[in-house]
Amino acid sequence: MTPFDKRADMLVHEKEPFNAETARAVLAEASVTPTAAFFSRNHGAIPRVDPSVWRLRVDGLVGERLSFSLDELSERFAEREVIATLQCAGSRRAGLLEVRDIPGEAPWGPGAMGTATWRGVALADVLRAARPHDAAAHVAFAGCDVSDEPPSPEAYGASIPRRKAERSEVLLAWEMNGEALPAVHGGPLRAVVPGFIGARSVKWLERIELRDQPWDGFFQSTAYRLLAPEAEPAPGAGIPLGDVALNSDILAPADGAHVAAGVLEVTGYAFAGGERRVARVDVSIDEGETWVQAELLEDLGRWAWRLWRAHLDLEPGRHEIVVRAWDSAAASQPERPGPLWNPKGYVNNSWGRVRVHVDG
Amino acid sequence: MTPFDKRADMLVHEKEPFNAETARAVLAEASVTPTAAFFSRNHGAIPRVDPSVWRLRVDGLVGERLSFSLDELSERFAEREVIATLQCAGSRRAGLLEVRDIPGEAPWGPGAMGTATWRGVALADVLRAARPHDAAAHVAFAGCDVSDEPPSPEAYGASIPRRKAERSEVLLAWEMNGEALPAVHGGPLRAVVPGFIGARSVKWLERIELRDQPWDGFFQSTAYRLLAPEAEPAPGAGIPLGDVALNSDILAPADGAHVAAGVLEVTGYAFAGGERRVARVDVSIDEGETWVQAELLEDLGRWAWRLWRAHLDLEPGRHEIVVRAWDSAAASQPERPGPLWNPKGYVNNSWGRVRVHVDG
Repeated sequence: MTPFDKRADMLVHEKEPFNAETARAVLAEASVTPTAAFFSRNHGAIPRVDPSVWRLRVDGLVGERLSFSLDELSERFAEREVIATLQCAGSRRAGLLEVRDIPGEAPWGPGAMGTATWRGVALADVLRAARPHDAAAHVAFAGCDVSDEPPSPEAYGASIPRRKAERSEVLLAWEMNGEALPAVHGGPLRAVVPGFIGARSVKWLERIELRDQPWDGFFQSTAYRLLAPEAEPAPGAGIPLGDVALNSDILAPADGAHVAAGVLEVTGYAFAGGERRVARVDVSIDEGETWVQAELLEDLGRWAWRLWRAHLDLEPGRHEIVVRAWDSAAASQPERPGPLWNPKGYVNNSWGRVRVHVDG
Repeated sequence: MTPFDKRADMLVHEKEPFNAETARAVLAEASVTPTAAFFSRNHGAIPRVDPSVWRLRVDGLVGERLSFSLDELSERFAEREVIATLQCAGSRRAGLLEVRDIPGEAPWGPGAMGTATWRGVALADVLRAARPHDAAAHVAFAGCDVSDEPPSPEAYGASIPRRKAERSEVLLAWEMNGEALPAVHGGPLRAVVPGFIGARSVKWLERIELRDQPWDGFFQSTAYRLLAPEAEPAPGAGIPLGDVALNSDILAPADGAHVAAGVLEVTGYAFAGGERRVARVDVSIDEGETWVQAELLEDLGRWAWRLWRAHLDLEPGRHEIVVRAWDSAAASQPERPGPLWNPKGYVNNSWGRVRVHVDG
């Protein structure tokens, strides 16, 4: 039985801490991912928080320190709703593992991402009430889940730049897809930072700290950074991950599938990340020599992925189908995972690939 | 003699309209490009505007129509200075031409870009004075240079989204590198839109129009759009280009150079475009199998490129040196120009490549 009310078709990489992703075919079914199938990526045990005693503190470089119960938050500030895709920075790591091993990291497929309707209050409104100092350039989120991955056990935390924190799309959310935020997704309250890697959407939020520097905990100073191939994780080493990089993958058919000759429907996702939008998606069966343009499906706004669909007429035999997306800056994706390999296995945004056997 | 006070080492692709780029080696010399060597990309004859009678009009969806002489602009609004890289969307087109011909388009190398210190007033301040209507979602710039490239002759114009126009980095500039803006660069006044393709930094600016739709002239509705390989230019077809896509290239040594065995210094540029920063630059001599990290040179702020330098120890023989950059979203560049080929030859942001012969 899959724990935490998750569906039996989840791919569970680890039971404790709980790490599970959505199956490709399930992602392909709907632009909004069902909560029971939504990925869950954790660095410690899921904390059980009693919402009746829980409070959110706001402190650090502020004119006024604040503290709220859930009711107080919803009474004091306007409720907001955002449809946003969250994507783990390690999504599609499996493609990098085919290049070279990455010990100790889960072999995520493309399902360490999902799209939900999040409801709560705008972080910007809460910050305004706290009157941040000019020097407060970063907004940190402290959770209460404790991880033993750092050199000594540490509660999870992360920060985002204040200029992002003050944008209207960044929420403190207590609702996911119309229901109370489940414990496995950070209930009673989590940050939702659209366009940023999932690791910044801190769960089981207990404290917001206004700071002059980014969060200095393990999961920002050492983890979630893109290292050069030969580098070792160390505080400050590598590119700190923030905005998600443009990505796409094929969700159906499955890799290695046997399909009938004739017209094949191929479906997948594309996600531009950051401030960008998905502008076009192309599919190829000749390693990018020629392309078929995919149809972009439901547009759920600027913070959500786009599912897409294409039709290919395939001859009998073996084919490799590849996909790439273009974003609103007319940037597209790197071709191969090899040149993207990095020691922690983040940001595999190489072309999506599946091999199919077309029956004669 | 190169016209318009340009240096003799400019690469002139066309004399009328004047289209000339900076030589690679000259770009490599300084993070701020000398004005006499700065690229000039034009669609019509350079207009000669008398600054003493010239005026800028602001109209369209505004509460107050405005008109300014140069003196009135500088008296009414605070002066601002921004160091910004401008890059033509066709820069590096030569790499796409090696894949397949692109009739009627200049074979730009990487020198259709340059970095200057621009001085003038913030567009945001001027817009505020005009009190734009809520429906004014776009800010259009109309120049007075007339082009015969459209189906019928047309003055150059382009627009940017209002959310960009209201950012402090967007200038109406009358000064370039400390001197009055030369006619060949749009004097007396031009728009400077940092992070966007050069085509939006409209020269010989005469009118700013607040609109509910993007500019509908030829150079935005039909040109400066990334088409699918099999598509024909047509109004509304393709991805409208705005934010510049991450790019980099090698500036020295020259392609085909003969160099001595031993340690070779390689220099080049990287430009993240849009809101992004250059985070890392890598150089490889084995087609991306292994990489050497380049040293990033002078940081001129968030709107400027980064020059970089790397040292390679090369065995005698032939080598292909490649470069790629990473941006602040940990996105990197596509590998080959082939899959990027498009009918107008825009946005070649494939890895930069030069071949060298190392003498034995």
